[in-house]
Amino acid sequence: MLFSNITVLDEKLEVRENRYVGVRGDRIAYVGGAPPKDDFGEARDGRGKLLMPGFYNAHAHSPMTLARGYAENLSLRDWLNARIFPFEDELDGEAAYWGSLLAMAESLRFGVVSTSDMYFFAGDMVRAVIESGAKANIARAVVAFSDDEDIAHNKGFQEAKALFEEYDGAAGGRIKIEMALHAEYSSTGRIARQLAEYAKKSGAGVQIHLSETAAEHEECKGRRGGLTPAEYLNEAGFFDVRATAAHCVWLSAGDMDILAEKNVTAASCPVSNMKLASGVCDVPALLRKGINVAIGTDGAASNNSLNFFEEMKFFALANKVRYGDPTLVTPAETVAAATFAGAKAQGRTDSGSISVGNKADLIVIDLCAPNMRPAHNLVNNIVYSASGGDVLLTMADGRILFENGEYTTIDIEKTIFNVERSVNRILGKLPPRPSDAKAER
Amino acid sequence: MLFSNITVLDEKLEVRENRYVGVRGDRIAYVGGAPPKDDFGEARDGRGKLLMPGFYNAHAHSPMTLARGYAENLSLRDWLNARIFPFEDELDGEAAYWGSLLAMAESLRFGVVSTSDMYFFAGDMVRAVIESGAKANIARAVVAFSDDEDIAHNKGFQEAKALFEEYDGAAGGRIKIEMALHAEYSSTGRIARQLAEYAKKSGAGVQIHLSETAAEHEECKGRRGGLTPAEYLNEAGFFDVRATAAHCVWLSAGDMDILAEKNVTAASCPVSNMKLASGVCDVPALLRKGINVAIGTDGAASNNSLNFFEEMKFFALANKVRYGDPTLVTPAETVAAATFAGAKAQGRTDSGSISVGNKADLIVIDLCAPNMRPAHNLVNNIVYSASGGDVLLTMADGRILFENGEYTTIDIEKTIFNVERSVNRILGKLPPRPSDAKAER
Repeated sequence: MLFSNITVLDEKLEVRENRYVGVRGDRIAYVGGAPPKDDFGEARDGRGKLLMPGFYNAHAHSPMTLARGYAENLSLRDWLNARIFPFEDELDGEAAYWGSLLAMAESLRFGVVSTSDMYFFAGDMVRAVIESGAKANIARAVVAFSDDEDIAHNKGFQEAKALFEEYDGAAGGRIKIEMALHAEYSSTGRIARQLAEYAKKSGAGVQIHLSETAAEHEECKGRRGGLTPAEYLNEAGFFDVRATAAHCVWLSAGDMDILAEKNVTAASCPVSNMKLASGVCDVPALLRKGINVAIGTDGAASNNSLNFFEEMKFFALANKVRYGDPTLVTPAETVAAATFAGAKAQGRTDSGSISVGNKADLIVIDLCAPNMRPAHNLVNNIVYSASGGDVLLTMADGRILFENGEYTTIDIEKTIFNVERSVNRILGKLPPRPSDAKAER
Repeated sequence: MLFSNITVLDEKLEVRENRYVGVRGDRIAYVGGAPPKDDFGEARDGRGKLLMPGFYNAHAHSPMTLARGYAENLSLRDWLNARIFPFEDELDGEAAYWGSLLAMAESLRFGVVSTSDMYFFAGDMVRAVIESGAKANIARAVVAFSDDEDIAHNKGFQEAKALFEEYDGAAGGRIKIEMALHAEYSSTGRIARQLAEYAKKSGAGVQIHLSETAAEHEECKGRRGGLTPAEYLNEAGFFDVRATAAHCVWLSAGDMDILAEKNVTAASCPVSNMKLASGVCDVPALLRKGINVAIGTDGAASNNSLNFFEEMKFFALANKVRYGDPTLVTPAETVAAATFAGAKAQGRTDSGSISVGNKADLIVIDLCAPNMRPAHNLVNNIVYSASGGDVLLTMADGRILFENGEYTTIDIEKTIFNVERSVNRILGKLPPRPSDAKAER
């Protein structure tokens, strides 16, 4: 496939006009200012369009699309205890599958090609992602509440291990299986060490929720002999492998040094953190320390969308107002976090930028949308002016998955039908809430 | 025209399914659960769609689309002095016209039907709005720097007065002309009093930038004998008429009491305030005082879009994280601010909700977009999950202006062509900046 006469955001995030980009198999095989000599088959006219790398969502819980808008205007405690936990208790694999497929449809619409995803029913998630044609680093979250528990008897780990053995590297590398410790507060030191050991031995990457709320961060010190979550996990060896730490809102300077030293990716989730009032991740400080900072949407139940353009704008703006400094977190830093930093977090080092030999994970943006004109600077427009609706095409591993509002792999009507049916099945098992039918105020 | 079998957000912001809404002339003439007996002509099938009021943008500078993305990652002082002021110095009426038309196209795409707009070249703005079919409360900003100056000799006021006499109530009431004092810091007490007197006498509404930055708020007290901007303007009689105060980031409790007593609308511009690092408008406090709180985008040069869905999400989230309380600023409060509070600010009291007799200012949202499912609560989904790209149809005064990506009144290709030509003309008069061609970091 060939994109001709298209504007390209190159690997230095510089804008190049009238380029030709050829895709062969799952790779970018040609980038140039003139048509290639080789035949790349079908050509797509790129005039009035921008070709840029797709987005890598560094933290998500895909099946939580099922609870989108279900629990609002509640404190974090009520959000979890009164709504999310009872809802999740009634989930089943079929619901998780359809919820994940809906998440993939939404992600592709908004330019996301690959997602770091932590949840239960991970096998059903894998199935949905493979069918969608998208990519994901999927982890079955491990929890443990008793020090007596050995990992050999931990249900979550057994599922994670079986998943790793069956699916890691599946679908031509589109699927990676990772190990996830849900969080410091929901696990034990013994399980943390054992999970880290397994990751090291097997070569799996790891995911964790890290210092999302002030309470979690402070209470950890009481529980763990004065150690912060990052210090405690580092001691457990959890950061000795490729690791993604989600949220990172309440890290100390020392915690940031650990992340920098251990090459841990910080996955900032600005919308979810603002919506649940958890705080603002200190992206400027992380970047100054040289930490790989990526962007995550978190689950749709706390966002409530997977719109990566919106997420980028929140990412860029949250720290400007926090520090009273409009020069912080530039559009170029934001695009880098959304693309190659996310790919790096996922161990997809041959992805995330437009260069020959890289995976063809590409999106096409409409430059004729009124909100994208004029184009004094396209990188500024991508972060501050683009809307999720401006994505014309999304391609992962050289395959077009979404184009002009249509999916090539997902039957969206069937997916929505089955999502609604799954949700009704779950709600049918829960006590009715009088406010369900009304707007919550 | 008849919308049939459509889901409707009613005047109490409650969701009603399978409704019929008939439009006759510029008004909503029928709302019911069964098809109307009268003939409303052409019917549009509403299955899988939501009909809700259009948005009223309570603060904007439409021609500033021309400078979208032109000045980024700069302090407010550099943003204004090094970029925006020199750019504006080279503006002309033709550029302002095309920039305004582009703003109307973008606004309609994102569901905005009416805009409170303050700028220069207001006659060119009026022309663009009338042609677009949209509505606007347009004000020619008045500035004055010498106490010697009488309003009779103020260029801005002379233009404003001529505009008021020619255009107030034009295009069937779509156009309202208002008086704008640019701000306390850019005008004199004499001009403020005289402008307020003219507004009272003529029946014009007024607009002003109020306490946008901490510096502006504090410096006012030094200049004005200890009075805050709101106190000073109140003394000048500026709030004795229907008034919209934009930004309101640094208001004191006493200032809020003045706004409440004088029925002044606070137009919060969360994206612009975060992007320029001005601060966060205290929406919960304003709402507790019973103040009419509406939402504005500010100009595209400091936003950099006119995407009202994005603006609503920032509006709802900014104070949750500021106060560490996720229950603040609910989706229902947000939709109210975006619709009937904005209409009220503009003196359009027969607008902003779906009731028989009201102006037919309506938008249709795609409920089959993956990000809009499931629909546990549609009001939550409108604020937190919808994307600007989900708007299928925008109607103002009963006339469809945008439908399925197409404009009925605006030649968008011609508009973009002339916007780019205008921008190039302006840039050609400015000294070149070496970084213009590159991403600003």
